[in-house]
Amino acid sequence: MKISVFRKEHFNAAHRLHNPAWPDDKNQQVFGKCNNPNYHGHNYDMIVQITGEIDPETGYVMDMKVLSDIIKQNIVARFDHKNLNLDTEEFKNLNPTAENIAMVIWKILRPKIDSKHDLKIKLYETERNFVEFPAN
Amino acid sequence: MKISVFRKEHFNAAHRLHNPAWPDDKNQQVFGKCNNPNYHGHNYDMIVQITGEIDPETGYVMDMKVLSDIIKQNIVARFDHKNLNLDTEEFKNLNPTAENIAMVIWKILRPKIDSKHDLKIKLYETERNFVEFPAN
Amino acid sequence: MKISVFRKEHFNAAHRLHNPAWPDDKNQQVFGKCNNPNYHGHNYDMIVQITGEIDPETGYVMDMKVLSDIIKQNIVARFDHKNLNLDTEEFKNLNPTAENIAMVIWKILRPKIDSKHDLKIKLYETERNFVEFPAN
Amino acid sequence: MKISVFRKEHFNAAHRLHNPAWPDDKNQQVFGKCNNPNYHGHNYDMIVQITGEIDPETGYVMDMKVLSDIIKQNIVARFDHKNLNLDTEEFKNLNPTAENIAMVIWKILRPKIDSKHDLKIKLYETERNFVEFPAN
Amino acid sequence: MKISVFRKEHFNAAHRLHNPAWPDDKNQQVFGKCNNPNYHGHNYDMIVQITGEIDPETGYVMDMKVLSDIIKQNIVARFDHKNLNLDTEEFKNLNPTAENIAMVIWKILRPKIDSKHDLKIKLYETERNFVEFPAN
Amino acid sequence: MKISVFRKEHFNAAHRLHNPAWPDDKNQQVFGKCNNPNYHGHNYDMIVQITGEIDPETGYVMDMKVLSDIIKQNIVARFDHKNLNLDTEEFKNLNPTAENIAMVIWKILRPKIDSKHDLKIKLYETERNFVEFPAN
Repeated sequence: MKISVFRKEHFNAAHRLHNPAWPDDKNQQVFGKCNNPNYHGHNYDMIVQITGEIDPETGYVMDMKVLSDIIKQNIVARFDHKNLNLDTEEFKNLNPTAENIAMVIWKILRPKIDSKHDLKIKLYETERNFVEFPAN
Repeated sequence: MKISVFRKEHFNAAHRLHNPAWPDDKNQQVFGKCNNPNYHGHNYDMIVQITGEIDPETGYVMDMKVLSDIIKQNIVARFDHKNLNLDTEEFKNLNPTAENIAMVIWKILRPKIDSKHDLKIKLYETERNFVEFPAN
Repeated sequence: MKISVFRKEHFNAAHRLHNPAWPDDKNQQVFGKCNNPNYHGHNYDMIVQITGEIDPETGYVMDMKVLSDIIKQNIVARFDHKNLNLDTEEFKNLNPTAENIAMVIWKILRPKIDSKHDLKIKLYETERNFVEFPAN
Repeated sequence: MKISVFRKEHFNAAHRLHNPAWPDDKNQQVFGKCNNPNYHGHNYDMIVQITGEIDPETGYVMDMKVLSDIIKQNIVARFDHKNLNLDTEEFKNLNPTAENIAMVIWKILRPKIDSKHDLKIKLYETERNFVEFPAN
Repeated sequence: MKISVFRKEHFNAAHRLHNPAWPDDKNQQVFGKCNNPNYHGHNYDMIVQITGEIDPETGYVMDMKVLSDIIKQNIVARFDHKNLNLDTEEFKNLNPTAENIAMVIWKILRPKIDSKHDLKIKLYETERNFVEFPAN
Repeated sequence: MKISVFRKEHFNAAHRLHNPAWPDDKNQQVFGKCNNPNYHGHNYDMIVQITGEIDPETGYVMDMKVLSDIIKQNIVARFDHKNLNLDTEEFKNLNPTAENIAMVIWKILRPKIDSKHDLKIKLYETERNFVEFPAN
């Protein structure tokens, strides 16, 4: 039987929800206050889940210090204290909803994690709104 | 691959665990202090999980504001600041354990959520006792 | 300089806010859904704060295990899984608001705690509504 | 003896730390990544503390529903989903540090709260950085 | 459809990560500060998840009070305020990583839980490092 | 009016409560399972509170990044992943109760913080047991 290990990290960012293919009033109607042209922001908490076998020599699935460094170098350094819409390549043409941010984080981390391990991302936009990719 | 989105809401209610088919001493023995005839109560936290595809136009599985309104109109308005045993139709003849409350919430919300989406309910009776329906 | 030590305990109870000197419509207007005649309930978290000198022999202000037992015997045993309005002497004639519950807990515990120590009670009715008695 | 009551509310906002009297390199040196010209953001949690006597008729210091409405109308409506630097009068010419935001919230709320009551604001910029005004 | 019920308990313990088959420098390199020969420690939170059918007579999957007692007698009594490496049989010859602790807890509890129920363990070593066994 | 700023940091350590001037049975009687000769451990959370005036140029009482570095260099580097009784000078001859640890942290940090600022330490040994030095 396999086991999952989890590491929690966080970043703080500004964003705005907006679909450039829509007129302003439709953006306002669909995204409401999240469409504010001057942006708003969040403390994002992310939980990275790795699933695999326990290595009998270390007792680890993988070293959490290594996983933490991978997350900090690839995700936190890229998104922390940034404006997701203006400062990042990933969301220049992709609406930075929690769903899309989680999927982008998964795509960035997937090639950095041993392919024998499964990867899942849980992203908290607030304590009350969060997402998980991929779904069980 | 599908993604899950989660919305957390809460309600405060009184309840009593009791099986009317049993004599008082068996109810007392099985349910202990939860059988108190004058009721006790909890702050219930519920997490509603919707699983589906991301809509490419919005970047949403579904609008969390819409989901929040569905939960408030159908669950919070029905159970908040109520006595589950006395004030609700759902628990007139059903013991309001955390298990049954979660199942009832699922049954109320299921027809309100697009049938292409999966639905799951996590209900916290306390920080230390909670349930999830359906199980993975 | 003195130091404070804190112990967190909890109880779950039903209650109803009501002033018997008022007509029903005024109770409803002032207390709203908290006036529900069939009660509602909460998970109450309480933090008991003791302030004093460190005993040089133990390194303790007081033994937290002893404090925990005092709280459990005098507060939890009295209020847990009870209807505050119906099942307790303290709230037969006193409206069980968070303010009054905190003051009652303070009055019950004060004679059980060494008089050389200061005592303060923080009571959480919910994560978002809480009180502290006495104020700083 | 007086008692304190607390109400927790929250807002999400973008901001940037910047002193316009300084050259860019000094702003960068002092405020680091918080000086990002395109802003970043936070989930701000605020706890509003009111200290006073318990009203013997209600058992309240003040009605938490009324306090919640005052906070929502005066603070949340003003700052939620806003860019503090660009969208608000208060921070056009005041650096939106946690310290200054807490002080501004206090100044806005002070005239809305009965003058017989003391007022204190605790503001969480993150779980790990927070402020309280005025200090004890 | 089945339902899961969860019970949270905790224990505080000292431990050291070490592979006796390796030389000291390799232990130091792999386990870093977790290899400290004089041990360090954690507040471990564990969540025990039981999955099964709701008993129509009780409305329970299983009585949480019974589950809590099973956990306290078999896990908390064994590991709380212990040095996992020195004071327990289970980790005399097994490295007490979070992964191995979760698996050991699962193996101890599995025969104590009705075989018709599924069992899963989530173990928090810190708020930011945790594991789940078996994986979904 | 002054304002307080708070920074939360944490360390994980092993310890044992013991008074070498007492016989073993008295140590066992007073400190119970905390007297285990092989140690146990905790995740310690500490909140460092600095009180002073807001600097009008920065909007800061003090830079939280600087405060975080002071805490990490002076407290975390000294106590994290250590056995407080065996690995530290401070607790060679001082019982490492939460009270004494908080007081030691205060004494180490006091000369590192500008003397015009007040300093207070809140230390969580567990979620349910914590201390604050000095008391208000």
